[in-house]
Amino acid sequence: MVEGPIVLGIVGAGQLARMMCQAASALAVPTVVLAARTDDAAVSAASETLLGEPADEQALRELTARCDVVTFDHEQVDLELLDALERDAITLRPGVETLRVAVDKAEMRTRLSAAGLPVPRYELLGVAGAAGRSPDELVAAITSFAAREAWPVVVKAARGGYDGRGVWLVRDPAAARTVCEDAARVTRPLIVETYVDIDIELAAVVARGPDGSSVTWPPVETTQLEGVCREVRYPGRLDPRLSADAAAVAQEIATVVGAVGVLAVELFSSGGSVLVNEIAARPHNSAHWTIEGSATSQFENHVRAVLGLPLGDTCPAAPHVTSVNIFGAPTASGPSPRDRLATALRVPGAHVHLYGKAARPGRKLGHVTVCGHDASNVRGRAWAAARALGTPVPDSIRGDLP
Amino acid sequence: MVEGPIVLGIVGAGQLARMMCQAASALAVPTVVLAARTDDAAVSAASETLLGEPADEQALRELTARCDVVTFDHEQVDLELLDALERDAITLRPGVETLRVAVDKAEMRTRLSAAGLPVPRYELLGVAGAAGRSPDELVAAITSFAAREAWPVVVKAARGGYDGRGVWLVRDPAAARTVCEDAARVTRPLIVETYVDIDIELAAVVARGPDGSSVTWPPVETTQLEGVCREVRYPGRLDPRLSADAAAVAQEIATVVGAVGVLAVELFSSGGSVLVNEIAARPHNSAHWTIEGSATSQFENHVRAVLGLPLGDTCPAAPHVTSVNIFGAPTASGPSPRDRLATALRVPGAHVHLYGKAARPGRKLGHVTVCGHDASNVRGRAWAAARALGTPVPDSIRGDLP
Repeated sequence: MVEGPIVLGIVGAGQLARMMCQAASALAVPTVVLAARTDDAAVSAASETLLGEPADEQALRELTARCDVVTFDHEQVDLELLDALERDAITLRPGVETLRVAVDKAEMRTRLSAAGLPVPRYELLGVAGAAGRSPDELVAAITSFAAREAWPVVVKAARGGYDGRGVWLVRDPAAARTVCEDAARVTRPLIVETYVDIDIELAAVVARGPDGSSVTWPPVETTQLEGVCREVRYPGRLDPRLSADAAAVAQEIATVVGAVGVLAVELFSSGGSVLVNEIAARPHNSAHWTIEGSATSQFENHVRAVLGLPLGDTCPAAPHVTSVNIFGAPTASGPSPRDRLATALRVPGAHVHLYGKAARPGRKLGHVTVCGHDASNVRGRAWAAARALGTPVPDSIRGDLP
Repeated sequence: MVEGPIVLGIVGAGQLARMMCQAASALAVPTVVLAARTDDAAVSAASETLLGEPADEQALRELTARCDVVTFDHEQVDLELLDALERDAITLRPGVETLRVAVDKAEMRTRLSAAGLPVPRYELLGVAGAAGRSPDELVAAITSFAAREAWPVVVKAARGGYDGRGVWLVRDPAAARTVCEDAARVTRPLIVETYVDIDIELAAVVARGPDGSSVTWPPVETTQLEGVCREVRYPGRLDPRLSADAAAVAQEIATVVGAVGVLAVELFSSGGSVLVNEIAARPHNSAHWTIEGSATSQFENHVRAVLGLPLGDTCPAAPHVTSVNIFGAPTASGPSPRDRLATALRVPGAHVHLYGKAARPGRKLGHVTVCGHDASNVRGRAWAAARALGTPVPDSIRGDLP
């Protein structure tokens, strides 16, 4: 391990931790990751690895003993345990108050709504399950909400969902019953929201320091398919007003939740206004483009922010940037992205990032970024490299490519 | 360790290996470094570390057993041993034929001169020492060379010199005697060269694949003080013709020596012509600016080249780029660069790279790069960040800064 005055601990060792470690390495900041498995993506990039589960007290205590500051790769945390660590004067960044909002959609909606921030209309349904509300009660609440709003509605698990999991589009009471009965079996807190007629999906990402200083990257258009982010474009179809609105909302959220580090806000544009969909109090897929596409990457600014260092410039490096996610092929046979690297690197200007994860169908394995002057050409090259790495172009995107 | 089809081994674990490992990590290429010490710069950035000396056969054999391709961080290699490995079908990139030219200035001058490439006029002096030529013979040879050319002359150790070590400016026979007597004590091969009246020092860097494909970064002006590179500027005072000449010479050298990976050529411009000063068959200080200043960094293209992957675009990312080296302060007291990081990161657009090395007076600890549109502003910011990190601005440069 490198000796140094500040050691950064990371709970979790996925690709976000991996790219944090890469950014920390340039600044000679030693990193220790708490990894569930030795083949987690960040293990080879961290200075040191500690094996353990993110909610295991002993493992967390060992991590904090080795580090000056602890940050997070994901939201699979135990807030009570983290709260106890904070009371022991351990520096968690973001802190528990921020994580509380980020890991629980009910808490998030309540806090943002109370702060006057634009969110879809929603209602907390409480916890489904034996100790909570019965499927009958929940279906009645959803039906009553839909009667005031309209069908369809969106039912969400307040905790534990990601990449489209834990979100259900519910068209009628019968569909509501199926979701609530499933939820009751696993004792899940639920919320119901209006179904938003989305014009554009976008994301705004902020980095905020412990002193309240902050920087915001220019917002990006995101393309989600079945709840999974496939493509991120700067500036995509965002006009300056929409971008400014999204950036302002993200900045305000960062302040409201007291974020330290990167905070990503996913939004909908609907009828010319922005509505907050989700927030994440960590580096986020919607800002991987900043590694090459911005003067300072989200990973470097996350590291700088959580260590209390000044934040770097977020201006874009080119007029157009596209990042495309790389997934394991639908069938396990055939070459992995790693074996296809040569073909992808032949695409001019393709910046390939692979996360060192074993290829499995549908698993996020990397991303590709292309910067340039012509939007269509940039997007075309990014998808050409993604395709070379085994990620087929979705039909809904193919028609838009040059 | 990450599993994967290609593992890259690196002999040596200094900052060049460290930055190779960082570049390899983005491509999910696992790296194994052969490090002399556990606190070598690359240890925390490599997937795996093997402890051992670069010229130790057992250590090298162990490294090659774990890797598919082996490359080099430095020139402290044993060519006979490497030759034996190559005969055992181990893939060394660059190979022994290239290394032979890169590690021995006598071999380099002979080969380049034979290929018609522009080098200062020189004469091989043979080996000084008990088994070789006596100081009297050497002084006579130097004096005779100076009689044909002019005093002063430059005497160089053919092997083992770097950062100005092993190079002596010799003004008269008495000074020649001092150098030759010192050299005789350590049995050193020497060469003598004309003293070139240098207008500008510059460097041209090429990456070349095993198939002979190659790319060249735009040449840069370098500022050397006492033989140590202090600053690299793209394009500095280089005019397009000088740049084109330098790039053409570097490309030809890469072909002549059969380089695989990065090859750096340091040149003098004198009276409007370029002359080759030194070559290095590895990533080089004169191209650290490419990390942020070019579409593809020298480290990524070195990794791509030695693995036989297609090479990336080398176009500059901005009209002006300056990199400044960070050194340990002349006195060991006071804060290290790591403790001064916050001040440096406050400089707009300063990209700080620290190598994780313990601070010692005069030791190269990192570099800073700034990209932008105005040459003077870019240079000023780069030096401001370097100064913040404890590297004073040399008098000869201070006057040129804004």
